[in-house]
This record gives sequence, C-alpha cells and structure tokens, in this order.
Amino acid sequence: MLIVMKVDATEREVADVVSVITELGYRPHPMPGAQRTAIGVTGNQGAVDASRFENMPGVAEAIRVSKPYKLTSLDLRPEKTVVRVGDAKIGGDELAIIAGPCAIESRAQTLAVAESVRRSGARFFRGGAYKPRTSPYSFQGLGEEGLKILAEVRDTYGFKIVTEAMDEHGLDVVERYADVIQLGARNMQNFSLLRHAGRARLPVLLKRGLAATLDEWLLAAEYIMAEGNYNVILCERGIRTFAQHTRNTLDLSAIPAVRRISHLPVIVDPSHGTGKNYMVTPLARAGVAVGADGLIVEVHDQPERALCDGAQALTLPQYEQLVNEVRAIHNAMSPAAVG
Amino acid sequence: MLIVMKVDATEREVADVVSVITELGYRPHPMPGAQRTAIGVTGNQGAVDASRFENMPGVAEAIRVSKPYKLTSLDLRPEKTVVRVGDAKIGGDELAIIAGPCAIESRAQTLAVAESVRRSGARFFRGGAYKPRTSPYSFQGLGEEGLKILAEVRDTYGFKIVTEAMDEHGLDVVERYADVIQLGARNMQNFSLLRHAGRARLPVLLKRGLAATLDEWLLAAEYIMAEGNYNVILCERGIRTFAQHTRNTLDLSAIPAVRRISHLPVIVDPSHGTGKNYMVTPLARAGVAVGADGLIVEVHDQPERALCDGAQALTLPQYEQLVNEVRAIHNAMSPAAVG
Amino acid sequence: MLIVMKVDATEREVADVVSVITELGYRPHPMPGAQRTAIGVTGNQGAVDASRFENMPGVAEAIRVSKPYKLTSLDLRPEKTVVRVGDAKIGGDELAIIAGPCAIESRAQTLAVAESVRRSGARFFRGGAYKPRTSPYSFQGLGEEGLKILAEVRDTYGFKIVTEAMDEHGLDVVERYADVIQLGARNMQNFSLLRHAGRARLPVLLKRGLAATLDEWLLAAEYIMAEGNYNVILCERGIRTFAQHTRNTLDLSAIPAVRRISHLPVIVDPSHGTGKNYMVTPLARAGVAVGADGLIVEVHDQPERALCDGAQALTLPQYEQLVNEVRAIHNAMSPAAVG
Amino acid sequence: MLIVMKVDATEREVADVVSVITELGYRPHPMPGAQRTAIGVTGNQGAVDASRFENMPGVAEAIRVSKPYKLTSLDLRPEKTVVRVGDAKIGGDELAIIAGPCAIESRAQTLAVAESVRRSGARFFRGGAYKPRTSPYSFQGLGEEGLKILAEVRDTYGFKIVTEAMDEHGLDVVERYADVIQLGARNMQNFSLLRHAGRARLPVLLKRGLAATLDEWLLAAEYIMAEGNYNVILCERGIRTFAQHTRNTLDLSAIPAVRRISHLPVIVDPSHGTGKNYMVTPLARAGVAVGADGLIVEVHDQPERALCDGAQALTLPQYEQLVNEVRAIHNAMSPAAVG
Repeated sequence: MLIVMKVDATEREVADVVSVITELGYRPHPMPGAQRTAIGVTGNQGAVDASRFENMPGVAEAIRVSKPYKLTSLDLRPEKTVVRVGDAKIGGDELAIIAGPCAIESRAQTLAVAESVRRSGARFFRGGAYKPRTSPYSFQGLGEEGLKILAEVRDTYGFKIVTEAMDEHGLDVVERYADVIQLGARNMQNFSLLRHAGRARLPVLLKRGLAATLDEWLLAAEYIMAEGNYNVILCERGIRTFAQHTRNTLDLSAIPAVRRISHLPVIVDPSHGTGKNYMVTPLARAGVAVGADGLIVEVHDQPERALCDGAQALTLPQYEQLVNEVRAIHNAMSPAAVG
Repeated sequence: MLIVMKVDATEREVADVVSVITELGYRPHPMPGAQRTAIGVTGNQGAVDASRFENMPGVAEAIRVSKPYKLTSLDLRPEKTVVRVGDAKIGGDELAIIAGPCAIESRAQTLAVAESVRRSGARFFRGGAYKPRTSPYSFQGLGEEGLKILAEVRDTYGFKIVTEAMDEHGLDVVERYADVIQLGARNMQNFSLLRHAGRARLPVLLKRGLAATLDEWLLAAEYIMAEGNYNVILCERGIRTFAQHTRNTLDLSAIPAVRRISHLPVIVDPSHGTGKNYMVTPLARAGVAVGADGLIVEVHDQPERALCDGAQALTLPQYEQLVNEVRAIHNAMSPAAVG
Repeated sequence: MLIVMKVDATEREVADVVSVITELGYRPHPMPGAQRTAIGVTGNQGAVDASRFENMPGVAEAIRVSKPYKLTSLDLRPEKTVVRVGDAKIGGDELAIIAGPCAIESRAQTLAVAESVRRSGARFFRGGAYKPRTSPYSFQGLGEEGLKILAEVRDTYGFKIVTEAMDEHGLDVVERYADVIQLGARNMQNFSLLRHAGRARLPVLLKRGLAATLDEWLLAAEYIMAEGNYNVILCERGIRTFAQHTRNTLDLSAIPAVRRISHLPVIVDPSHGTGKNYMVTPLARAGVAVGADGLIVEVHDQPERALCDGAQALTLPQYEQLVNEVRAIHNAMSPAAVG
Repeated sequence: MLIVMKVDATEREVADVVSVITELGYRPHPMPGAQRTAIGVTGNQGAVDASRFENMPGVAEAIRVSKPYKLTSLDLRPEKTVVRVGDAKIGGDELAIIAGPCAIESRAQTLAVAESVRRSGARFFRGGAYKPRTSPYSFQGLGEEGLKILAEVRDTYGFKIVTEAMDEHGLDVVERYADVIQLGARNMQNFSLLRHAGRARLPVLLKRGLAATLDEWLLAAEYIMAEGNYNVILCERGIRTFAQHTRNTLDLSAIPAVRRISHLPVIVDPSHGTGKNYMVTPLARAGVAVGADGLIVEVHDQPERALCDGAQALTLPQYEQLVNEVRAIHNAMSPAAVG
C-alpha cells in the first residue's frame, strides 16, 4: 500500500496518517518529495484496507502496489533520491567518484593512494578492512586496524570513507569509523545482514550479486529500506557469464533499467566489472556515458605488489587520467542524459 | 602442506607431528584414512619448511599443495568421506534421502509429510524454520517455533533433522535442535557464516551457489573445514543460466567433477534444481544415476497451499513413487558407478 | 490452425480437408495418430477461418494454435513420434545408441571403432565427414571420402549411418550416403539449412544450440517440419554457462521439458555435453535415467591421437562398459519413466 | 607463420616472398602497414620452415604464430585496419553510424527512415531484405525486392548500404546490390557461409554470436580473411546471459578486448544489444565512450507497426537525438581513447 498525500498536505496530516498505520500494526515509511509526500506501508499480511485512509485529511489517494518492490519504486518517490554523505552527495548533478585500494594493506600504501585521490578531486575514499576472499588462506584484511587507517585518511583529507562490512558484528564496527557501509556482491542476498544494515544510521552501498536479476537486487535494497534506512546506493559491478575475456561482464544496461523503476542512485564499478587493468578506464567512460551517478574504482600505488586484486588496480597516473576522461564525458552530456 | 604418515605410523607419531605443527603456529588437521593418516597444515603465511617434518618418525612424506583447496582434496584423503549422523550415513553405500517440506508451516502439515517420509524409508527429514526469501514481505519461516516442531518429528519418527541456518545467531539455535546444519546457496560465500559453521559440532550441508564455480564451492567447504569441522556434505542445487524452462539448471556434471578432486560426499537437490513439480522425479533419477550420494527433495501434503516454493513440491504419492524409482536405479548400478 | 478429425474419419474425409487447405493457398500437414488424425495448417498470414472446416464431414474440431510452434506440438500429435530408420527406431521402447568417432579420419580407424560398436549391440554409427571447426586451420574432415568409408561400414555391419551436414550442398551429398542427417549446434538457427533439410527424405537429428532456449530449439524443428519432413530427432548436447569444469553444461531438464510440449523423440549427447572423457559415462547414465530416447556417444580406438575432440572420446572398452551400464538402468526403469 | 618485411623492403622483395609461399603450396596474405609490410602464411599442415624465408632479401624476421588467430592479430598488422567503403570509412577517426529499419517492409517506410538518417549525417544505411527469424511463420523479409528498394535509397541519398545475407545464394544476390555484407549473430559459426563471404569483394560486418567467446569471434573473422577478404568489421550485439531486463546483455568490454589483440575495427549494436527502445540511446553513448568505431542502430518511422523488432526501434526524433548525443561524447574524447 502506498498513500499519496495532497500537494498541500500539512505535516500534521502526514503525522496523522503515520499514526494510523502504526496503530494498525503496520510500518509507515514517509518519503517527502519535491512535489508531495508519499507514505509506504509495509508489515502487512495480505491487503491493507484502503478505505481506512482515503477519507483522511490531506490524503490524495491510497494505491495498492502490485510490484514486489515498494519502497525502492518510483511509485513511492517519483524523483531521484540524492544520498547525502555529510557535505558530499551521490545521485545529484555532480559525478560521485569513490576511489582507493582494494584492501587497506598499510598506512604508507593508504596515504600514497589517498594523496592521488585527493589530487583528482574525488570526494570519497574506498578501501577494505574486512575482505571477503574466495579462499580461507588468502589475505583477509587488517580488520579494525585498517578502519583506523581509513579514519586517519578521512581526518587528513576530508574524504568520506566507504568500506565493506561482511557480517553483523563487522557492520557495527564499520559504523564507528566509516561514512558509507558497503555490502559486497556475495552478500547481496545475506538477508540477515541486509536487515542489520537497514537499522544502521549510515548510507549503504549495495553491490549487485554476481547472478542477481534486477528484481532480486531491488528487493535486496528493499530489505534495507523496510527497516527504515532509505539511503541506499546501488552499484553495478559485473555479472557472471560464459565470457572469459573479463573476470565479470559489466552489465551497463542495468543503469537505465534501474532508473526506469527506482529512485535510488546507481553507480558503476569498472574495476570488479572487468578485472583487467587495461579495461577499467574505457568501461569507466562507458559507465558515465550510460548515465551512472558515479564510479567506484580501485587504485594502488604499486599494483604489482597488491595483496588483493592487483590485476585490476589502476596505477596512480592511470587513475588521474581516468578522472580527466570521465569528467570530460560527463560535461559533454546533456542534463537529461546525466539521469 | 600435507604430511602423509606411513601405513604403520603409531598414534604417538601422529601426535608428535601434530604437536610440532601447533608449535610452529600452524593448525594441524589429521585425517585418518583406511590406509594411512594424513595431516593437513593450514594457517601458514607462505611456504612451510618441509624438512621440519620429513625426518620425523612415522612420516612418509611432506607434500606441498599447489591447489587452492587442501582439506577438501583427495590428496589429503584418498577415500571418500562418510559423514555419520547418529546411526545414519551420507556418503556410504546406501542412498541418503532427505525429504520434507520447503518450510515448516504448522505442526499438522509437518506431521502429515513426516508420515509419508517415514513410509518411504528415508532417514533424513528436512524443513526450513528460517527461510531466506527474495522479498522482505514473503513468509520468513516460523523461527524457533519451527525448530521445535522439527524436534518433535525427530523424536516421533527417528529421523535425522536437516534445517537451514541463515546467520550466526540462527546457527547456534539450529544446533540445539537439528542433526545437520544446512547452508543455503545464497550464503555459500557468506564467509563469516562458513567460519561459524566450521566451529559447530554438527555436520554441514553446503549448497552450491547459483553462480559458483567448482573451485569456489570447494573453497567454501574449505572455510568450514579449516575451522575443524570436517563433516561437510556438498549439494548441487542448480545454477543460474539463460535457460527459462527451469528455475535453475541442474548441473549434474558437478557430481563426477567433485568426485575427481574431493573426498566429500555430494548429493543432489532436484527440487530447487528444476523448480517444477513435473521435473523433480526425472532429475532425481538422473541424480542417482550420475552417482550422487543422496537426494534432498521437497514434499508437501498440499503443494497448492504451500507458503513457499509450492510449484516444485511433490505431493505425497509423487514422492513415494520417486523413492521407488530412484531405489530401482540405485540397485541397478554397479558398485563402481555408485561412486 | 489445427484440424482434428473424428476417430472414425475416413481417408477420403482427410483427403478432402487436405484439398481445401491447399485450395486456400495454405499447406496441410496431416499427422495420423493412434487414435485419430490431425492436420496442421501452415503458410497462412493471419488467422485461418475455422468455419471453413468445422462443418466438413469427418472433422471433430478446428483449433486455433496460440503457441509459436505448431507441428512440433503435442496439440497436433498427442503420442510420441517414433522415427523409423529402416528397421531401426528412435523414440520407441528400445534405447537408441548412436556411437562412433567424432571425425572419420581413416578407413582403419573407422573399422576399428565399428567393430566395437557392433559388439555393443548399437544400431547406429556416427562419424563426421564434414566437421564444423572453430578455427579455419583445424582438420575439416575428409568430405565425400569420409562418407564413402561410412557407407562401407554400413554395408559391412548393417548400421544406420548418422553424419553431419554443414551446408546445403553438403546435405545433398550426405543424403546420398547416410541414413540420418545431423545438424550441429552451431547451425541450429541456420534457417536456410533447416529449410533445406525439411525438403530432404532422410530423418534429421537436430542438436540444440549452445545458447538456445527451448522455444528456439522447437522452432528450429518447426522450420524443418514446415517443409514436410516430420522425422526430426532432437538432441540435447550441453549449453554454454559460466561453469568451467566442463566444456558445456549438459541440461538434462531439457528432456522432460521437451516431453511436456512436443511429440518428437529426444536424445542426449554426453560427449559434447561434458567434453571430458571421465564424465561421459556418468552423464550417459543420467541421460537414460532422465528419460531420453537414446544416446549419441563419441568413441575412438586411439583417443590420444584423435584429430578432433580427443579429450571427450571414450576408448573402446570404456564405451562397451558404458553400454552395459546404461542398459542396466534402462531395464530398471518403469515403462512410464522411460518416456 | 608470419613474415615481417624490413621497413625499406621493395615491392619486388615482397612479391618474391609471396611467390615462394605460393610455390610451397601455402597461401600468402600480404598486409601493407604504415611502417612495414607483413605477410601471413596459411594453409600449412604443421610448422612452416622459417629458414626458407629468413635469408631472403627484404625479410626482417619469420615469426611462428602460437595464437589460434593469425590474420586478425595485431602481430600481423600493428595498426588498426580502416575499412574503406567507397568514400566512407569504418575504423578511422570519424564515428561510423549505420542506421535504418530492422527489415525493409516497403518503399514508403524505407524512404521515410532514409530521410531522417540523411538529416543525421550518417553515411551508412541498414535494412534487412533477408531476415533470420526464430519462427518459420514470422515475416521473412522481402528478398530481392527489398534489395532493390535499398539500391534506390543508395542512389537517392548517397548512403552505403549494409544488409544481411543468410546463405551462400543470398550472399551472391546481396553482393549485387549492397556495399557491406552483414553476417548475423546466428550465422557467426556458419563456417561455409564465412568461407563464401571470404571470397566476396565487399566488406563483411560480422556480428558476434549470442554465446561466442572472443576467440571464437576472431576465428570466425579468420575464416573470412583466410579466403582473402581482409575487410572485416566486427560488431558486438549482446550476449545471452541470465539477465532478463534486456533481450541480450551488451558486453562493452569486448571493445577494448578486441583492440588489444586485433587490428579489425569494431562497432556496437545497441538495438539488439538491449532489445528495449528506452535503453538504446544510453547504451549507444556508452558504446562510443568505450571506444567503438561506430554504431549500428535500428530506426523506424512507425515502430509500433514494425514487422520485426519494433520494441527496440527508435522513432525518427529519438534517433536524431541519439546522433547528437553520441557526437558530443565522441568529440569530448581524447584521440587515444577514441581508439
């Protein structure tokens, strides 16, 4: 159920609807928009009685939602969500660039990369302290020690920090140090973790699973939002196909597809999306051209010595060149195409 | 590193090697076999010095393992692992049949299905109390209430109970009620959960992820075994492909592929593997014929009213017919083909 | 449009309906069945006027067909088609076994393999004279010379010969030497070749394309049948997926899926379906257990010297063991399960 | 074998090497480049004796080629091939735009679309006279009648005509009317047709197959080139994956992947690559940004009445907007990024 308020509905009228939803044992999700507020209703078993709301003051209409996703849908919020991270934004006019090493390996490595990221003008710094690795015998990240290095980088350079959480405990720790919680592709349908992230106060960057359909991805976001955290950023990072010239197949059609049904911002990861250094910049350009709200890119001061995913990491000069190229394309695009 | 003991090595000699491994700060994984004991070594960064072991009494040889998986490998244990669940087995001569509803919905439903499963002679009963669902608005399982119903079924019928855990807390609860912990396809690379399962005392049924390669699947098992739980049963349950006549594409080639490199038992899930009622029995027959150690099958007394995956559930008569058919095939197979 | 004749319709009544269809400029496809004859109508643009037929003597009903496939459908012919190849059959009670080398390389090689195939009791011999090869620089087959060797094998051993045609000219030549024309996976949507095969007098073995949906596969068969050749045998030979432990992923669910909508016989190719010698026999067993009408298997007297696909060829003893194993399974199956 | 001539080798020296290759029974493929000429050698069984060439005047070196593709490779020709079609080019500095309806349906439709394509400044006009259709009952194209309409459009507007051939006979007819022969995705491994196209005098636009790896695609081009037709344009048009929000998954990583190993120009088909009208323009922008040499786009004056693929056809205004957007991006790119 979706309750659309009139354009001139008062805050009091919105609050009254919210109260009735709560009294009925459901959960209200008010979404203020540029034109009007809509209130999503979740927690119901079976249909909600629309007549309970239709005659309340300020209510324009009560709409039954037939799609599986509700809160992620354009029906609830026709304009795009801009996720605010302090004074930075993802989903606004500016291209959001998130850059940094795959894994935080040391203070020296992190600072070297941070210096280059700062020069590029990016507002977000990424780096993994908890690393999901295919093998139990691979480097698993520095843990909280890595988060402390990230916090130092934030304080020094003014970046917003994006870093991954792999489980509920780790998410609580990440929340103490970071600005955006990243949930990885392999956890996209870790429903307990999604719910936990839905109760966090930080925005969540939700990567698409390797074999996730669009519906599954949006429903994963819905898990987070249904718990009250509406600041979700989607991230296309490549899907698994038969193709062997890349590590994953970057599915850029996902960007316009998300746009058509959801108000959530969506960014592109050309590093995991290709797995090959020489492809990152061309696919980053393509990601911007297709209309993504931003990029997340892996950079390393010494890719050949990286403890994780060195094959896809850009060198510092390559990264700075990438930023120049994608900015030129972003500037050449019409406002409509930018999304 | 893999340390192979001589055929006539004493327990004391094995214990001495284990001690040295521990003293070096590594983790020993002794695997007694029909012929000889081998001891896997994990926890090392970089190569282990073989000369430390080669001259110890009872040691036949110390082998560097170049494959990414160690404990799951036939190198460590050349004969197939038989997972014992009380007086029942998975991986032995007998075909293991695990049957029951997708979700525990009520005591009445569960008992009705249990009655049929008992008639069929199956030793294992399955049913979900915690259900991973694509949508946050779908039925999520009865939780601990469902586990209590399963415990009652066990006490009444003597089944071994197989049920899924979705997170670390849930796994602890499942361990109090069940006999085998199931980890679902979507959690196959939930590495924190795998580690937690590795510290549980119950065997783990590990489903293959929707887009998992064989290596990734075995490395997920390796995560569990590296923590000391060697009772892992693999389960092929279909992969995601372009094909649309099934929910998933059951990849039966995975059974001989696993056999060729691992000692772990492997079973087939023709229910999720097809998603269609009419395909379950033919693919169950095929799963047995290809050499699987068992089947896990969804059965419901009223599939049309199931709260979860009704389209693939067998009716009770269909299920009993399936068991007859697969037993006939199993009996017709030569011992070598049985695996 | 599908015109179902009454059970007691006379040949004359069938002929009259056929005449009217032809007069209207359409093409009639009469399909005599165990119970009654049905007549498919193709060649129409838009709907056919049912009233033209409904009152004709002997007509039970005229049915509009909404599915994309018509002649392949169970609607037209409710019982399974048995393709007769001389005194041998595909689709009947007996398991059809087609065996032989990937490519005809020499008379000596072919005769060595033929001897083993004869011992196994198989009725069909396969071998490629025209080979579709990924690279222009690979062995392309002996051409008509190879067909002559096949013809000698037929005369010597009484086999029915199955061999591939790659183009229209080659198909005409194959028709002079063989008993069944094979169309390969890469040509499944070579529509000109399909049409040409539809005008041939020999049965056609149509392999599923590497990325073909069920609908596309049946519509490829429909191309052949729409030209008047109703003797089509479908062959599942593996699809392309992300999985890397096999050359292709054998999709055995295709067998029950075809059964549910089509009367055409369907066989399994475990050689191309896996690409690995050690998997061929297990998957052959599975193919029989799932209900296929037969198998097509690659055998070589010296696989290590094969000019084509040696990695998947069985040795002669392996092949004879395979036949024993699949016969045991076929015998253990109930008549209903056999399909 | 690849024979690299010295920078200052004379035409006579090149001709002498060509003669020796021919005398040895092989086929020479001289490729003049900006710096030097290289001569590919095909037709050999086993290795060619390098010493026969190494001491000939003008020869710099004779290189054994270990990759499966030879003539398509950068080893043979380090600079990108520019395919010249009369006074137009594909692979040069200018973005090549090929636009027109999926199928030629009528003279009126074709002229309406042609008018719009002319306004956009595109140099190439596309339209199918022979249509490969999944169903034998779908519109199959106007055949030679359609080619005559295309020829009229060429004469009127000065376009270069790109149109598909489905079989050898059709290719001969297409060659009489068109400027570029298109080979479709479903025929990418129709090896007889590839060979036939290799003996045509017109350039060939070779679409990537739905399930083709990069190697298979380049080897398909190699089939054409091995017959002596070196004017091959590759076209990425989407691959088949599990994703369902598009008809195909456009694999833009194929563009940099081709660049890295081949000198052939490569373009993008965002129409088939997505199958959805609303995605064509964003993915066209992405295709240009990733570095493709051009686009092939479906346009229709009345998409809702199209006899073929209406869901993906752009309206005339949408198409003209697309051209504006991709030109802006192309202009914003650095020469290096353009490819």
